[in-house]
Amino acid sequence: MPNTFLINTTNSPHSKLLPVAVSEVRITKGLLAERMRTIKEVTIPTQYELLEQTQRLFNFRRAAGKAQGDYFGFFFNDTDVYKWVEAASYSLMWEWDDQLDKLLDQVIEEIKSAQDEDGYLDTYFTFEKKKERWTNLKDMHELYCAGHLIQAGIAHHRATGKTNLLEVAIKFADHINSVFGPGKKEGTCGHPEIEMALVELFRETRDYKYLGLARFFIDERGKGLVGGDLYHIDHKPFRDLDEIVGHAVRSLYLNCGATDLYLEIGDRSILEALERLWHSFTERKMYITGGAGARYEGEAFGEDYELPNETAYAETCAAIASFMWNYRMLFAMPEGRFADIMEQTLYNGLLSGISLDGMHYFYVNPLSDNGKHRRQKWFACACCPPNIARLIASLPGYVYTKSYDGIWMHLYTENSAKIEWNNNVIELDVKTNYPWDGDINITVNSNAKFSLFLRIPGWVKEYSILVNNHEEKPEIINRYAKLERNWEKGDRVKLSLNMKPEVIISNPKVKDNVGRVAIKRGPIVYCIEQADNNFPIFDLEIDTEKELKSIYSENLKGLVVIKGKGYIPEKDIWEKNLYLPIEDLRLKRNEVEFTAIPYYAWANREQGPMQVWIRKA
Amino acid sequence: MPNTFLINTTNSPHSKLLPVAVSEVRITKGLLAERMRTIKEVTIPTQYELLEQTQRLFNFRRAAGKAQGDYFGFFFNDTDVYKWVEAASYSLMWEWDDQLDKLLDQVIEEIKSAQDEDGYLDTYFTFEKKKERWTNLKDMHELYCAGHLIQAGIAHHRATGKTNLLEVAIKFADHINSVFGPGKKEGTCGHPEIEMALVELFRETRDYKYLGLARFFIDERGKGLVGGDLYHIDHKPFRDLDEIVGHAVRSLYLNCGATDLYLEIGDRSILEALERLWHSFTERKMYITGGAGARYEGEAFGEDYELPNETAYAETCAAIASFMWNYRMLFAMPEGRFADIMEQTLYNGLLSGISLDGMHYFYVNPLSDNGKHRRQKWFACACCPPNIARLIASLPGYVYTKSYDGIWMHLYTENSAKIEWNNNVIELDVKTNYPWDGDINITVNSNAKFSLFLRIPGWVKEYSILVNNHEEKPEIINRYAKLERNWEKGDRVKLSLNMKPEVIISNPKVKDNVGRVAIKRGPIVYCIEQADNNFPIFDLEIDTEKELKSIYSENLKGLVVIKGKGYIPEKDIWEKNLYLPIEDLRLKRNEVEFTAIPYYAWANREQGPMQVWIRKA
Repeated sequence: MPNTFLINTTNSPHSKLLPVAVSEVRITKGLLAERMRTIKEVTIPTQYELLEQTQRLFNFRRAAGKAQGDYFGFFFNDTDVYKWVEAASYSLMWEWDDQLDKLLDQVIEEIKSAQDEDGYLDTYFTFEKKKERWTNLKDMHELYCAGHLIQAGIAHHRATGKTNLLEVAIKFADHINSVFGPGKKEGTCGHPEIEMALVELFRETRDYKYLGLARFFIDERGKGLVGGDLYHIDHKPFRDLDEIVGHAVRSLYLNCGATDLYLEIGDRSILEALERLWHSFTERKMYITGGAGARYEGEAFGEDYELPNETAYAETCAAIASFMWNYRMLFAMPEGRFADIMEQTLYNGLLSGISLDGMHYFYVNPLSDNGKHRRQKWFACACCPPNIARLIASLPGYVYTKSYDGIWMHLYTENSAKIEWNNNVIELDVKTNYPWDGDINITVNSNAKFSLFLRIPGWVKEYSILVNNHEEKPEIINRYAKLERNWEKGDRVKLSLNMKPEVIISNPKVKDNVGRVAIKRGPIVYCIEQADNNFPIFDLEIDTEKELKSIYSENLKGLVVIKGKGYIPEKDIWEKNLYLPIEDLRLKRNEVEFTAIPYYAWANREQGPMQVWIRKA
Repeated sequence: MPNTFLINTTNSPHSKLLPVAVSEVRITKGLLAERMRTIKEVTIPTQYELLEQTQRLFNFRRAAGKAQGDYFGFFFNDTDVYKWVEAASYSLMWEWDDQLDKLLDQVIEEIKSAQDEDGYLDTYFTFEKKKERWTNLKDMHELYCAGHLIQAGIAHHRATGKTNLLEVAIKFADHINSVFGPGKKEGTCGHPEIEMALVELFRETRDYKYLGLARFFIDERGKGLVGGDLYHIDHKPFRDLDEIVGHAVRSLYLNCGATDLYLEIGDRSILEALERLWHSFTERKMYITGGAGARYEGEAFGEDYELPNETAYAETCAAIASFMWNYRMLFAMPEGRFADIMEQTLYNGLLSGISLDGMHYFYVNPLSDNGKHRRQKWFACACCPPNIARLIASLPGYVYTKSYDGIWMHLYTENSAKIEWNNNVIELDVKTNYPWDGDINITVNSNAKFSLFLRIPGWVKEYSILVNNHEEKPEIINRYAKLERNWEKGDRVKLSLNMKPEVIISNPKVKDNVGRVAIKRGPIVYCIEQADNNFPIFDLEIDTEKELKSIYSENLKGLVVIKGKGYIPEKDIWEKNLYLPIEDLRLKRNEVEFTAIPYYAWANREQGPMQVWIRKA
């Protein structure tokens, strides 16, 4: 079995967890399985077509001298190809496909042909642009592109055992190492990404020069080499950061790389900065959907508590970056808070980035909309579509980790797993309708003494654990229930998480949410969309005293809708009045039943307004 | 008895009401009496000192050749002197004062000495600046200054019977008429004000050229002669306006002038424009305090429903202008809605413009503040201090109007009035603690057949009227109860307006007020100020289900405070959480009693935060 880890911390001295490989976990049924299947069957093939149609593959042929014409599109368009290769590789990890494997080899051949003798590879900086290589690290994304190439090369190698793309990546990495480093060229990338790629290349090759180069690129920040500003997260050395700022995707990718670096070198000042950034993000700058980046301007984080709904940026790539970062943080500190953010992000502001048909994408994920914002087939700057493809295709790798003393379950989804552990293979069979139901039934199909660590999500108020129908009250360590046992084949664990709809209020410092509530059930954030409701949804005021009912619906590929009560003011009452006694309004409103759907599923039907934060009556 | 009308519509063909003179009404006790007394005893004398100290009188002496040096301050500083003269004149109307009369004559002598042979008078445009006269009507306020001179001249004439200032004003008006008009110079003023002054000068002199000139200046708007923009209300002809826009004071002064013009010429297209502007203002752009102008930028009205609290501009002068405009609208349409706005503005966003000590002023009247915003002794641009002095000094003129069939009572305040009506004098004696109590006891001390029109305020839910202890159910015409009767000396009317504290909510389109409520009792809008409360007031959430208690307090010169219940979250609960289930919060908050005071009285004690719109629990 090839090593199909997402990040291979097997030998990382400061990692408290070990990864479980993508190919060790089969996600068999349910929401995530459906999304993965759509990625494989619809998204990956249609994106391949789009890479051709939009000349992204042409750029490689052109660079190789196999095609004539001008370079097409943005200077970082190579990354769309690399991310697609990565997505396709993950897909192969959990379901082999000869055709896709062959197609990958073709694409890799195109990539390889575009590489210079010296290893340099960026199809924009070819021919007359060759002389501009490495002259504008702040804006031109060469190292960012290299990072995605390296990640694709590693994923493809891990998926297939082949080295055809990994060799290209290594050749480029070696070239970069010949250019940059202490005593060589100063600089770092305006768009972080290469840092985590280089650490992983170190893990893949055990060649320390890549680790050194990753460290170099992180240590170069804050010297004013790439703008010296918040946008580029170049205003301070990384170790001094205490507030998450700047371009959200760059900021969160940088945190991924810094976490990877910490796991290898154990520098506490890096971990302390990461902790500060995590609190800054999750306690003051994160949307309830997990979305990151409040501002259109600079695609950036705003001030503390600046979280507008209608003009939320919350780029799909930023949600992906946060998910990847929180996963890495788990290895440094196996605490439920990180997996909570992964879950919150995945099921809301990340899954919202792709349509249910698998062919349309949100770049921006607002929490309130007049109905004009719709998913698109592609973008000129198409970072999000292949990014969400690679993330969803890699989901099996995020479900579990392991440690010297057992198996950790972070995400709940129906699956069967065969996990190499301590010279043994632990087989787990998990049946659940999660996230629609909080019952998780786990059958252990191996004889072994180990601890099963089950995450108790932060949103849970009541839960119970039965082992072979006997209630257990295990120790809870950092929000993981530790079931230490001499497991015998056929042992059954039932984790029941009480999953009822909850009314959520926001910190009052978030101005746009004052007087508003959101509805959440388990990890799912709900919204009201016009398609389900026969009143103007922006007029709704929720009665938070009335019961919220959860109803499973086959619509929208199957999900739980929530119904509740609210009020709609009589027509025209607000036409002629700016201010009214609350008593008057209470006499002039009609009770209505509203239907809310999971936020990720909005904008998959006819156009209409949508809102997450709804006024409270 | 001199004619001490504020606007003399006695002969205005399209006026449905006649004015009652300032000297016919003595406001004897209560909030307004106290404010008037302070204006006379503190504000007028201290402002005179400031006019000297800040070189505003020097500028006149300089222009007259009696003093040497540079012109001092803003180019419109003359108006501060004129408004002070107007204020002092109104004060004389209701309480003669030999010393003040003498001081006025001295000041008028200074003004007169500064006038050119040809009648021109503006101390900025003298000596080397003479050649710039009338060259920049958009920015340089010459006609605006002239308007205030004319208003001062009329008020002084009406107060004293003297013509020393009126003659100066007429001489300047004649000069202006020689320069501007059809076939003469095109143009109008960037800052409206002269329009209402000229109509009143017509009323004072019956010389139609002033009415013609007022009409000319209004008809010149919208031709692009003064910017052609919203700010100067020059984007459209006045008759085509349908949205209140631009600099709030300019816009509302222009409406005063246009209303005055309508009362004389009866042009329906003007009245229709005024109606549209009134609805635009009161239904979409007015603060609950009556404040006008949402934006610092341009001191201007914002978009519909753009009514931020912390950054509200709501200039004191704009509240005054709205009060003056709504008074004029009453004469065109005797409907309670106009007097409602007068009352709402007077007791809240207008009275807030001056400190209880009568010596400190707000230029800007926010509805939420961190405690940094304090009243100042004076301003470089000091339009507001003498403006509020003249408005408060003229209050007796706003209480009543009359019509061919009776006496109209618009504002309730303790007073005794002797009103010339139909060759008779109607004596009314009004006892009330209004606005702290809704009982108004009126004794008619004359024998006459007339109708007493009593305004039933828009905020009233229940009221009763007793005449000589017998309940009456009179006809209500446009919110005025019409008591038609052969009145006999000693007849007593008791109007009881049920005055209980009310919780007010805002149109949900006002984003900043979503989830917030205001407290109002009768015409008074309340705020919570830190000085009265031992918890951080911005943390308060009001429980709108709990009773609000009204308690009379001798503090702050006597007023009714309101006490109610609310909640303060446990310390730190929002330090680490962006989002919480509402149930969790409800378990982690403490009930508190809060005290609210009338908005106008805030910032008269130690510094501290203040808020009108308070979060609802």
